[in-house]
Amino acid sequence: MEPILGLDPAGMRLEPGGPGLARQIHAQLKARILQGGLPAALRLPTTRELAEALQVSRNTVVRAYEQLQAEGYLEARVGDGSYVAALRAEGPAPAPARATTPPALPATPLWQRLQHEFEPARVSAGPPRAFRHGVPALDLFPQAVWARLQARFWRRADRQPLGYSDPAGLPRLREVIAAYLSHARGLACSAEQVIVTSGSQQAIAMAALALLGPGERAAIESPGYRAAVAALGLAGGQVLRVPIDAQGLRVAALEALGPCRLLHLTPSHQYPCGVVMSAQRRLELLAWARRHQAWLLEDDYDGEYRYAGVPLAPLASLDTAGRTLYVGTFSKLLFPGLRLGYLVAPPALVGPLARLRWALDRHASVADQAVLADFIEQGEFLRHVRRVRRAAEQRRDALLSAWQRGFGSALPLTPPQAGLHALLPLADATEEQRLAAAGEAAGIELGRLRQVGQVLPASARAGLLLGFAAVTPAQIETAVKTLVRVWR
Amino acid sequence: MEPILGLDPAGMRLEPGGPGLARQIHAQLKARILQGGLPAALRLPTTRELAEALQVSRNTVVRAYEQLQAEGYLEARVGDGSYVAALRAEGPAPAPARATTPPALPATPLWQRLQHEFEPARVSAGPPRAFRHGVPALDLFPQAVWARLQARFWRRADRQPLGYSDPAGLPRLREVIAAYLSHARGLACSAEQVIVTSGSQQAIAMAALALLGPGERAAIESPGYRAAVAALGLAGGQVLRVPIDAQGLRVAALEALGPCRLLHLTPSHQYPCGVVMSAQRRLELLAWARRHQAWLLEDDYDGEYRYAGVPLAPLASLDTAGRTLYVGTFSKLLFPGLRLGYLVAPPALVGPLARLRWALDRHASVADQAVLADFIEQGEFLRHVRRVRRAAEQRRDALLSAWQRGFGSALPLTPPQAGLHALLPLADATEEQRLAAAGEAAGIELGRLRQVGQVLPASARAGLLLGFAAVTPAQIETAVKTLVRVWR
Repeated sequence: MEPILGLDPAGMRLEPGGPGLARQIHAQLKARILQGGLPAALRLPTTRELAEALQVSRNTVVRAYEQLQAEGYLEARVGDGSYVAALRAEGPAPAPARATTPPALPATPLWQRLQHEFEPARVSAGPPRAFRHGVPALDLFPQAVWARLQARFWRRADRQPLGYSDPAGLPRLREVIAAYLSHARGLACSAEQVIVTSGSQQAIAMAALALLGPGERAAIESPGYRAAVAALGLAGGQVLRVPIDAQGLRVAALEALGPCRLLHLTPSHQYPCGVVMSAQRRLELLAWARRHQAWLLEDDYDGEYRYAGVPLAPLASLDTAGRTLYVGTFSKLLFPGLRLGYLVAPPALVGPLARLRWALDRHASVADQAVLADFIEQGEFLRHVRRVRRAAEQRRDALLSAWQRGFGSALPLTPPQAGLHALLPLADATEEQRLAAAGEAAGIELGRLRQVGQVLPASARAGLLLGFAAVTPAQIETAVKTLVRVWR
Repeated sequence: MEPILGLDPAGMRLEPGGPGLARQIHAQLKARILQGGLPAALRLPTTRELAEALQVSRNTVVRAYEQLQAEGYLEARVGDGSYVAALRAEGPAPAPARATTPPALPATPLWQRLQHEFEPARVSAGPPRAFRHGVPALDLFPQAVWARLQARFWRRADRQPLGYSDPAGLPRLREVIAAYLSHARGLACSAEQVIVTSGSQQAIAMAALALLGPGERAAIESPGYRAAVAALGLAGGQVLRVPIDAQGLRVAALEALGPCRLLHLTPSHQYPCGVVMSAQRRLELLAWARRHQAWLLEDDYDGEYRYAGVPLAPLASLDTAGRTLYVGTFSKLLFPGLRLGYLVAPPALVGPLARLRWALDRHASVADQAVLADFIEQGEFLRHVRRVRRAAEQRRDALLSAWQRGFGSALPLTPPQAGLHALLPLADATEEQRLAAAGEAAGIELGRLRQVGQVLPASARAGLLLGFAAVTPAQIETAVKTLVRVWR
């Protein structure tokens, strides 16, 4: 082939198996224009000429030229032909090649956190092993029932649920959640106060983003919930750690830390240490929030799992000043992969929080919300809650008795009165590290308190979390025997 | 009944139909303690005495007392009895009644926005009507195929997908998205660069939160995408508006606005005006971003819908400096209620962005991600894209010809070369308001450009958006006839 008007078709290689011929021609001409191989004001061959040279249909070349023209690389002059447009890029013309140097990264406080502080929980591959914590009895989840409800949803002739939906959540789901909270948790609230979230994580993130002003500080129990520390840090301000004792969060210590706008806490069952916050402390905290115009974020992540006594009434039900936001999740009752939870907010906060949800990600999956509402309405949810609560208690008992048989009083495990894990208190970080490593080498998953609970380096607190809910009593017994062997 | 040791059982009313008797007793005693009706250090009746007085089983009262003790309201003295605990609430003791005054609200910049600026799109009830915009042909979505894939997912014996998952998304889904982008959009990227998001909305919100420091300004095209304005505003800084012309965003106007760290733009098909950004402007923008260390957020929300020419290559494929983040969504190809989209980021940003996603809401629904990956792998996705693209073109043609028949040249509609809506330019805001109100009174949905596009009050730009993709040609013809009638 000979050059035609400055364009050498010989350099153009069209691959029959590649993308459409028009696209290949377009891409190659564009690359040459950008690299300066086809200078501005150059007249290109006519479409007929180039088509002949490349042995393609003229239409193919027309499509490529039209595209280049639409993008501004070519200018068509009426009755004349196509010319390379004058591109006046400021700075050197970019070569369409791979970047060799990484871009300059943000220097913001949050970016620093994202790089150095946020530490997502490791996602464990494979089915749950002993002693994975934070996961309920997935083996008991009625997949067949869920599948039936999903199928029913997708058989609907009405396509409306495929569209955009209410940021605060499906009205029907908000109603059944409000009814459940009032009936089962003693929290009287209206459906309008319930905002459906993508798990408790989003509820905490939303509270932090909405309620913390620039530089305002948040606080959390120490040890506390690692993922909540990250969510509270999203607003950019400092996240204080408030020590706990046998009565729960130490309000006097909180007071001593100075100004703080938002406090995340787990009063029903402290995460990860298991303390129930005393009535005394609850009243002190409510008074503290009123006095400082601070917000309480009550995270009731596993309140349904209680093996003694009546379930505790939420702090939010005691709050008469409307300063408590209540957070719940379906992760510990159904399954974490569902990503559905909720935030119950004082009425004055609901509108702005729903608008925040809209700005963050609009709303949760409509199908999942509808299926969950069906699951609750048909009584399957309460049935399942009873089932997993009973199973968790049996698995806890299996752990305690296997532990007693295996370790006796040499290494006492605190018997959990609630929740999905037991805590093994240890002398120090070295011991925690040593036992965790030995267990993990033998295939046993162990939560390290200092890591999971974000224990401050200066604190002496150490221990291991043993999740008992996700595996069978037989697996638990085998795992305890393994630990007895490898910890000797 | 007589008072027993200062507690008058006559005042206690137990409702047989209410919650459990133990819970009722617990609640009533707690209320009295909190209200001061049962003062500190008062000795309560024994469980046997109270059980007799209330004519309930002793076990019931034991459960209530245990609960009060666990919460710290009662103290059990060994060999003696139960005493009301001394609660030293700071400030006046709260009365467990409804709040009468609303709480003092946050005074932060974002809260002001949440109250006064953020304006979620109205969620329209019922199936799509003409001329709903921003929604694809939901009537063509293969619900049966989707239902079959869902059912297959839920039949899995392996429960692992019920647990927590990778914040960046299911590896299999990230891979098929990267392959699709390379094949269909000319964007070469690796699966590791793809972060699965809850729709494009979350991708924009994540970019804003991660890349904007305190007080740093973002910018967006004007008219622009309303929901993106809200997402950019999440970081608290100012959101500048950059005017567009026939070549797209005016880079000189952007430059004149001064410092700006992040720019949201829709170069393939400007939202909502439909302009394709010229090559000249693209090069200028890339040079601008390099010079100012700014980030470009390329929102390619509907690039698949193109009725002339080859699809445009994304800006991200021209960027050699790694300063462009590319956003895509399945909302305009499958259905918005799914809430799945993606962000393709320069490699250096991926890790921190995935950690941000973890802090925000951990990850997207695992089942939905798995089903979508199956849908793509089995070829259903490409088949559906072809189907909805063809349908959109037919519906666009139906609109244009019905419009021509109905209005002639009196009220010219700009023929859309791409996307899911047509724009009817109008003289001013008054005309826009008048025609929209008349149409809506007759049951026609119309997008008001000044509202949808967040047109600045001072701008003269006005018009109506007519979505044509979500309804059938017959519905479109009827709706045009209605408009002819009511706009006369």
